[in-house]
Amino acid sequence: MQTNDILNQIETLAAKKTEGMYLDDFLLTWDKSEDEIDATFLTAEILQAMRSHNISCRVFDSGLAVSIFRDNSTRTRFSFAGAANLLGLAIQDLDEEKSQIAHGETVRETANMISFLAEVIGIRDDIFLGEGHTYMQAVARAVAQGHREGVLPRRPTLVNLQCDIDHPTQSMSDALHLIHYFGGIEKLKGKKIAMSWAYSPSYGKPLSVPQGVIGLMTRLGMDVVLAHPEGYNLMTEVEAIARSNSRKSGGSYTRVNNMAEAFEMADVVYPKSWAPFAVMEERTRLLKQGSQSELKDLEKRCLENNRQFIDWECGEELMSTTRGGEALYMHCLPADISGVSCERGEVAASVFDRYRVPQYNQAGYKPYIISAMMFLSKFKNPAEKLKELLEAAKPRLL
Amino acid sequence: MQTNDILNQIETLAAKKTEGMYLDDFLLTWDKSEDEIDATFLTAEILQAMRSHNISCRVFDSGLAVSIFRDNSTRTRFSFAGAANLLGLAIQDLDEEKSQIAHGETVRETANMISFLAEVIGIRDDIFLGEGHTYMQAVARAVAQGHREGVLPRRPTLVNLQCDIDHPTQSMSDALHLIHYFGGIEKLKGKKIAMSWAYSPSYGKPLSVPQGVIGLMTRLGMDVVLAHPEGYNLMTEVEAIARSNSRKSGGSYTRVNNMAEAFEMADVVYPKSWAPFAVMEERTRLLKQGSQSELKDLEKRCLENNRQFIDWECGEELMSTTRGGEALYMHCLPADISGVSCERGEVAASVFDRYRVPQYNQAGYKPYIISAMMFLSKFKNPAEKLKELLEAAKPRLL
Amino acid sequence: MQTNDILNQIETLAAKKTEGMYLDDFLLTWDKSEDEIDATFLTAEILQAMRSHNISCRVFDSGLAVSIFRDNSTRTRFSFAGAANLLGLAIQDLDEEKSQIAHGETVRETANMISFLAEVIGIRDDIFLGEGHTYMQAVARAVAQGHREGVLPRRPTLVNLQCDIDHPTQSMSDALHLIHYFGGIEKLKGKKIAMSWAYSPSYGKPLSVPQGVIGLMTRLGMDVVLAHPEGYNLMTEVEAIARSNSRKSGGSYTRVNNMAEAFEMADVVYPKSWAPFAVMEERTRLLKQGSQSELKDLEKRCLENNRQFIDWECGEELMSTTRGGEALYMHCLPADISGVSCERGEVAASVFDRYRVPQYNQAGYKPYIISAMMFLSKFKNPAEKLKELLEAAKPRLL
Repeated sequence: MQTNDILNQIETLAAKKTEGMYLDDFLLTWDKSEDEIDATFLTAEILQAMRSHNISCRVFDSGLAVSIFRDNSTRTRFSFAGAANLLGLAIQDLDEEKSQIAHGETVRETANMISFLAEVIGIRDDIFLGEGHTYMQAVARAVAQGHREGVLPRRPTLVNLQCDIDHPTQSMSDALHLIHYFGGIEKLKGKKIAMSWAYSPSYGKPLSVPQGVIGLMTRLGMDVVLAHPEGYNLMTEVEAIARSNSRKSGGSYTRVNNMAEAFEMADVVYPKSWAPFAVMEERTRLLKQGSQSELKDLEKRCLENNRQFIDWECGEELMSTTRGGEALYMHCLPADISGVSCERGEVAASVFDRYRVPQYNQAGYKPYIISAMMFLSKFKNPAEKLKELLEAAKPRLL
Repeated sequence: MQTNDILNQIETLAAKKTEGMYLDDFLLTWDKSEDEIDATFLTAEILQAMRSHNISCRVFDSGLAVSIFRDNSTRTRFSFAGAANLLGLAIQDLDEEKSQIAHGETVRETANMISFLAEVIGIRDDIFLGEGHTYMQAVARAVAQGHREGVLPRRPTLVNLQCDIDHPTQSMSDALHLIHYFGGIEKLKGKKIAMSWAYSPSYGKPLSVPQGVIGLMTRLGMDVVLAHPEGYNLMTEVEAIARSNSRKSGGSYTRVNNMAEAFEMADVVYPKSWAPFAVMEERTRLLKQGSQSELKDLEKRCLENNRQFIDWECGEELMSTTRGGEALYMHCLPADISGVSCERGEVAASVFDRYRVPQYNQAGYKPYIISAMMFLSKFKNPAEKLKELLEAAKPRLL
Repeated sequence: MQTNDILNQIETLAAKKTEGMYLDDFLLTWDKSEDEIDATFLTAEILQAMRSHNISCRVFDSGLAVSIFRDNSTRTRFSFAGAANLLGLAIQDLDEEKSQIAHGETVRETANMISFLAEVIGIRDDIFLGEGHTYMQAVARAVAQGHREGVLPRRPTLVNLQCDIDHPTQSMSDALHLIHYFGGIEKLKGKKIAMSWAYSPSYGKPLSVPQGVIGLMTRLGMDVVLAHPEGYNLMTEVEAIARSNSRKSGGSYTRVNNMAEAFEMADVVYPKSWAPFAVMEERTRLLKQGSQSELKDLEKRCLENNRQFIDWECGEELMSTTRGGEALYMHCLPADISGVSCERGEVAASVFDRYRVPQYNQAGYKPYIISAMMFLSKFKNPAEKLKELLEAAKPRLL
């Protein structure tokens, strides 16, 4: 993108209604308006382009970006760190093991205590069904109240780095990848995407990636087909949202129970394993009880159950049934690759390898999507601020 | 505070004698002169006001703020991080578990090795009686020697983030809270503060909070009453300091053995649990020996002993005996709240809730108290430097 | 160094051929040309001098410095953090335990995923013989490929923070210390350095320090004598390099099997323990198998074997046989000091103490050596960039 194109993008952004994002959180994509979703893509592209032109995106001279990872993370952790640093914020991680969080200490209290100098808070909490989103809402309410009461000088805004319901920084990066791949957001209309369960010799993978994908892609007018074996259904609330989205956008949402049907003539395929809903519920219950032996049992049963569907693999044969035999293969990574990371997994090595570079690019949008979410929550007039940065053209690297 | 008021505060600061703080550590409040204590409050207020006016407080372009946490921490960890970042320093935490600190490596050596590019070192070491302060003194001596010998280009200055004797960043934040509450440092004179032991179903809480409070509030001319059951006495050295302070300041220091007497007509109450001195000594001995079973035994005995004093709870009845029935309730947080974090604890839920916002504000002073301590140790003429920042008025958030 | 001297150093640097370092990694000193080694020393000195003149060395407005520590570290961790911060980069540590690195995830994938906003990657991987360097090469290949393929906007460059073969940030700091001690790099020619094994009651210490020393000091024209008991030999490839280096530089490389011979008339002594090569190989095999009991056994046997050579201690008697009785004693720290960190160790307390300050200074070069390595990999014309910084003379501390 040339500097002129950046300016054009900024003008397009200026026309979007983004006031609602100011001092607000990014928890679920379906809570955001069309304009807000568009603005997030645009801001991400502008920030990425400015950085590639060695133009500083630093808007903070100081300030903290707090991260709370209640589950392991590499990709998202580094994306969040990069995003915060790009804007001038320093990461402060809340390591709950090293914290003096007393038994019974309220979320409200902890949230305020870590936020006196915080600008943004990123949270991953995706292990327990029914918990992650609820926790994020509690933190958001706590800091909003703290700000109203004069405890916090600024309202720290939240970025959902994966909860039990949605994984917006992932699905938005996925969508930005599709926008670039097809040459514009309008081009997504009518494209068929197969969000399919795939076999993996692991268990307990969150539902939030497929949920995020069906919840977002249906808004963009795509023909979204969800495929999974019986019992591997997603949250019904999210499916309802996907259905409703597709009606409004002119896309469609269907559910099938075999991979082949989903893949047929698909423009995009997203084969990825997840745990059966009922298993996740049971697991949540057992984890809370701390029943180690029952957990082991559940894992064993679940893996056995998975094994029935070992043929749900994204192989060359299936790929050849997609549009022109060359649907775009997507994955949030890391993938379980047959013969590489496991004997038999989600995808054949030859398919994975052919799409390796596009997938890495897909992952590469995440830092910019996150910084866009941060940026839009911090400026009432983001276009104006980006223009200022562009004109100042302060070098990132001297 | 308006910009003009900030300038006035800076002028007040300019009149204080602070040269002694330059390149010196902040380990115990009673090692500091009146002027130095005042200057710390003033600098904290100025930094907080400048930040709220979106004026950058960044004085470092680069440099490290080293933290060493030998005990868990959330509040203080985030306060230290925020304080360092506000001034432009990056946090580098010494995680002693991941360090290659050899058996028998001297404190002098480690202290120098982590300090080549360090400006400040914050330490929490509050578990062992007789150790934390001694360790901080050893680190301070080591870096002072390193600087003298030309090993360290700058003298990193220490901030005590809680030791076995004092918790100055806590007591100074507490005092700044009182200053704001009563409308000026002069207004504290003659106000009665009840620093009282309170029941908690936990054990091993450090003595440094109550010690810090009686050691500081007696200097400010307050009528300090310490209340605790027999056996829960504090270090006699610190009580001696409190007594001597009160004589000089025109305040008073008394010790009683019941909560009711302490609370009567009190303007401020600070009910908080701590371990009996003898238990802390025994615990220190056993922890060093690594006698797990004896430690469990000690814990059990200690908790049983505590239970005798289960009625030492800050409830509504006691609160009603304070001045006008509305003494300011304080706690360093997290508190043990009856019916919330435990069946029966330090404070009734209704009392805690009524004072929640003031308490959060109290905690909110800590980052600025810490940055003030850092700032005063780094500039020979802090007022001049603050004026420079104010006049430059570089925005913190673009 | 005065500002004028800094300018002179910059001009000396300008005459060195450093283009090969641009966008390249620093993995082994013997992969670098004479000019590149010289340039690293010069840049380190310039950066250190600029900082001591309170001149900002900040060339990055934002960007990440990724660290991967596969072994414990204090000195190197803090040096890397300080070096990155000096140039304006924020540290992001890849904690492999908290990462979602899937079983079978390729090094290529992880390397790319953590590098979207990375400028440099520092790696310590020194536990397994035959692994550390190989891993670093894989990471380097991965990010180079990622950059070529357009996945990474910039080529993150690697700094070897210790591998199984070399420890270049250590040996280069050691050499810079010698340059300062003897008054110039030319003065090292013909000086005798004894790199000697020494007794320690520990086991499994890497070979990379002595290997790094013999691999680098032979290039600088020194007379390098390696001394160790039978069985404690180093990698033959590295010895071959040392031999070849010394032929080119006019120095010499010899190996003896007693400390006394090595120390005789030495100008510099570097007594330091390491594990026997065969033990390291066996240990690597057992660690991979996870054979805990066999590992314990190996440790026991190894320590018993060590004990045969308990008289390999750098004591006063041996020191008296060095040139003028006052050879420079060196250690990478922490040392095993007899009567201090262990009953009997690598060095007598009196020897260690006499050289404590020089040793600390030796360690103090490391942050600047690392920032020089980073700097030279990021600028095609480093001298010009340093001159810019010098002329801008932006204060590091306001």
